[in-house]
Amino acid sequence: MDLNNYTLLMDYYELTMANGYFESGYKDTIVYFDMFYRKNPDNGGFVIFAGLESIINYVKNLKFTDSDIEYLRKRNSFSDGFLEYLRNFKFHGDIYSVKEGTVVFPYEPLITVKANIIEAQIVETYLLLCVNHQSLIATKTSRIVRAANGRPVMEFGSRRAQGAQAAILGARSAYIAGAAGTACTISDIEYGVKALGTMAHSWVQLFPSEYDAFVSYCKMYPDNVVLLVDTFDVLKQGVPNAIKAIKEVLIPMGINKAGIRIDSGDIAYLSKEAKKLLVKAGLPWVTICASNGLDERLITELINQGAQIDSFGVGERLITSSSDPVFGGVYKLAAIEEKGVIIPKIKISENEAKITNPHFKKVYRFYDVESHKALGDVITIHDEVIDSSKEYTLFDPQCTWKQKVISNFEVKELQTPIFINGNSVYDVPTVEEIRLHCNNELDTLWDEIKRFDNPQKYYVDLSQKLWDLKNSMIEKSRNSNRK
Amino acid sequence: MDLNNYTLLMDYYELTMANGYFESGYKDTIVYFDMFYRKNPDNGGFVIFAGLESIINYVKNLKFTDSDIEYLRKRNSFSDGFLEYLRNFKFHGDIYSVKEGTVVFPYEPLITVKANIIEAQIVETYLLLCVNHQSLIATKTSRIVRAANGRPVMEFGSRRAQGAQAAILGARSAYIAGAAGTACTISDIEYGVKALGTMAHSWVQLFPSEYDAFVSYCKMYPDNVVLLVDTFDVLKQGVPNAIKAIKEVLIPMGINKAGIRIDSGDIAYLSKEAKKLLVKAGLPWVTICASNGLDERLITELINQGAQIDSFGVGERLITSSSDPVFGGVYKLAAIEEKGVIIPKIKISENEAKITNPHFKKVYRFYDVESHKALGDVITIHDEVIDSSKEYTLFDPQCTWKQKVISNFEVKELQTPIFINGNSVYDVPTVEEIRLHCNNELDTLWDEIKRFDNPQKYYVDLSQKLWDLKNSMIEKSRNSNRK
Repeated sequence: MDLNNYTLLMDYYELTMANGYFESGYKDTIVYFDMFYRKNPDNGGFVIFAGLESIINYVKNLKFTDSDIEYLRKRNSFSDGFLEYLRNFKFHGDIYSVKEGTVVFPYEPLITVKANIIEAQIVETYLLLCVNHQSLIATKTSRIVRAANGRPVMEFGSRRAQGAQAAILGARSAYIAGAAGTACTISDIEYGVKALGTMAHSWVQLFPSEYDAFVSYCKMYPDNVVLLVDTFDVLKQGVPNAIKAIKEVLIPMGINKAGIRIDSGDIAYLSKEAKKLLVKAGLPWVTICASNGLDERLITELINQGAQIDSFGVGERLITSSSDPVFGGVYKLAAIEEKGVIIPKIKISENEAKITNPHFKKVYRFYDVESHKALGDVITIHDEVIDSSKEYTLFDPQCTWKQKVISNFEVKELQTPIFINGNSVYDVPTVEEIRLHCNNELDTLWDEIKRFDNPQKYYVDLSQKLWDLKNSMIEKSRNSNRK
Repeated sequence: MDLNNYTLLMDYYELTMANGYFESGYKDTIVYFDMFYRKNPDNGGFVIFAGLESIINYVKNLKFTDSDIEYLRKRNSFSDGFLEYLRNFKFHGDIYSVKEGTVVFPYEPLITVKANIIEAQIVETYLLLCVNHQSLIATKTSRIVRAANGRPVMEFGSRRAQGAQAAILGARSAYIAGAAGTACTISDIEYGVKALGTMAHSWVQLFPSEYDAFVSYCKMYPDNVVLLVDTFDVLKQGVPNAIKAIKEVLIPMGINKAGIRIDSGDIAYLSKEAKKLLVKAGLPWVTICASNGLDERLITELINQGAQIDSFGVGERLITSSSDPVFGGVYKLAAIEEKGVIIPKIKISENEAKITNPHFKKVYRFYDVESHKALGDVITIHDEVIDSSKEYTLFDPQCTWKQKVISNFEVKELQTPIFINGNSVYDVPTVEEIRLHCNNELDTLWDEIKRFDNPQKYYVDLSQKLWDLKNSMIEKSRNSNRK
């Protein structure tokens, strides 16, 4: 398998449908698909959008190889015409997307794809996979970083990640959302996510004694000492041996920067006792790093208990978003073009939450001009214009009596063009720039929305025009479509 | 990034330690590492081991490229000698592993690596990542397949997978554990996991009406019709339109094989009502497939409620093992060689569960010769021999009074050599063979161990010799190692 070509990482039904469109005369039909999600992970107040760079690379490199075509031919389900079409396949459509690192909310079109139906359908699976995975990890990391309240959080989860990309892109997503670095070396090479780390228990076990292991490490890497003190007994052996090694090796070199790491046991108790030992030994500047199954809940509790921790290593619960490991982004048909006219489409379903917002749309975010805080978002039909010199009435699309009239606002469109007519038109920002953007985005949210439990619900409303359209289409669908 | 080379998908500390070993005179020290885990996911009774093929490919392709070396040089932490060593790096050691598809239990060494300390350390992260991810998905799928009780389970989760490999190798893991196929096309190409699928809601939406969409599909793929009936209203529109299309297109062609799929709403109720409509229409042979957030719990409940479902499409909860998305396999130093003598090593820690089993070991499984059911496993020191002509006393390593004397048994070693002196010595089985092996493995387990809730604990005991060694080492460590 050429792991650089994920073209056929695709639900098989995309292909059966594509062949069907091809053979039914729909191959040139222009459609509009929206990628959106319905629920914030961990019942949080928002999501940090990520995954766009992967999608851009994927779309640019879409290619059905000869052996792919051969495989499909053997399935005996695809016409020769369609297979030849795939052989020359290229994406010719438009893609609009929110920028990575942006704060987003349920039901907003995060990505909109305008293309012929075959091209639009073929990108579905991978597009969803990228956003679903990377936004999930960015959002989870943001929670953990906020819980750590200024203390650095290192991403340590590669070995528990769900596959190689989960490790590599998980580290990137974590960094975007504020992690200080990663243990995953390849993510540093690829994305400039600083890779860090010092020692495992095996280092300590290999040497004749823990003390010898610490001394060797201090001599080898005097500028980057973090001694793992829980191989045998944290307080009776680990910390005393660390103090001895630091005093004997680092202090004579004039170095007064070092740390210890505790990876098991009662971290709150052990860190407080370790701190006392360090202070008593005249080494109050030695930092304490904690790891072992941490997440935003445990970090909050450790801090509340007065644990003496300067930084956190967070692994499996971050890299899998273990408390809520599925981000359920979907990709739904919103409109088709007939003779150049956009015809809105809707999906009804028994579950009310699964009813889609029809039409080619835009999303606007309103900001208070004084506080620069975000006031609410409105989803509109694509050609609506919002006049920021006038008052604007936000209203809840379910409970329409919940209204709010706002004025003195600035308004910003959330999506930006990524591909136009198949050409890439977007300057992909660096990971560092995305990280900064993400940090700025968080500053636009009121604390009430950033709360872990029962966060304030952010307004995501429909424009009057879109609301009217949607409700008339629901009504019409209930009355027709039965033959 | 060359996605075919995951050499540097490695915790950075593996490299700082490796350089340290190189510079401290340990580079030729032969060590033994065990990969094992401590807890069955979902509080189940066992795990299905998977991930070995990925590890074999990784070990064979290990290579530090010039640009990798350049990156490391710029970190200013590695000696020139070490970097030259990496430039010519190759794995020269031995790897013993349980076969994929084998049923395994906590604390058993699933993989044992014997190599020089640098080589053994360098493979850690990726080895763990492969086993942790793939065993997790295989184990979860096995639960779901058992809940479906003979009804086919299709893996549909690519779009919610945590990255590309999670989708591709997740499909492979699911197939090993009994899934009937996947939606992920590339997994078919790569692993022969049959890719299947028919239509999404967009197909139904694109056509002038649901009925037109169904008719077109039936004409296009008469041999493979599964109509998605929940785009507008399952019972009032979807099923009646499906019946009409099947009668008008398929019946005249003499085809009496087709299905419908329900992807939202109250699946138990809708499937029963849909079945009634199909029977009444004279199409009792039309199968019903259910999807939408299913897992082993929901499938069990649907079946208990008499839902009329012939097959299941399972996505996000399988592909992420969402109820327990972390498999915590670890990799721990068990022994080192000094002048050709194996010196056992132990890690103590405050958490009792984190105390390791020392020494180079083997795992044996005991089977009852009549029922062929597995009776228990014993972890021994590597050179112990078990005489199946004599009685053998199993005893619990924590609660040593829990003993069981067995006779009339067969005994089988669980690990098999994969690499010897760096050479691959294992005939990698096909995915189909692994799937069959997995199925046979499940037959060796009593139902009590396969139960979802409070399964019977399977015996995994230590030999007397290993137990004695471990306890003497714990005692010794408590009394020494303080300087």
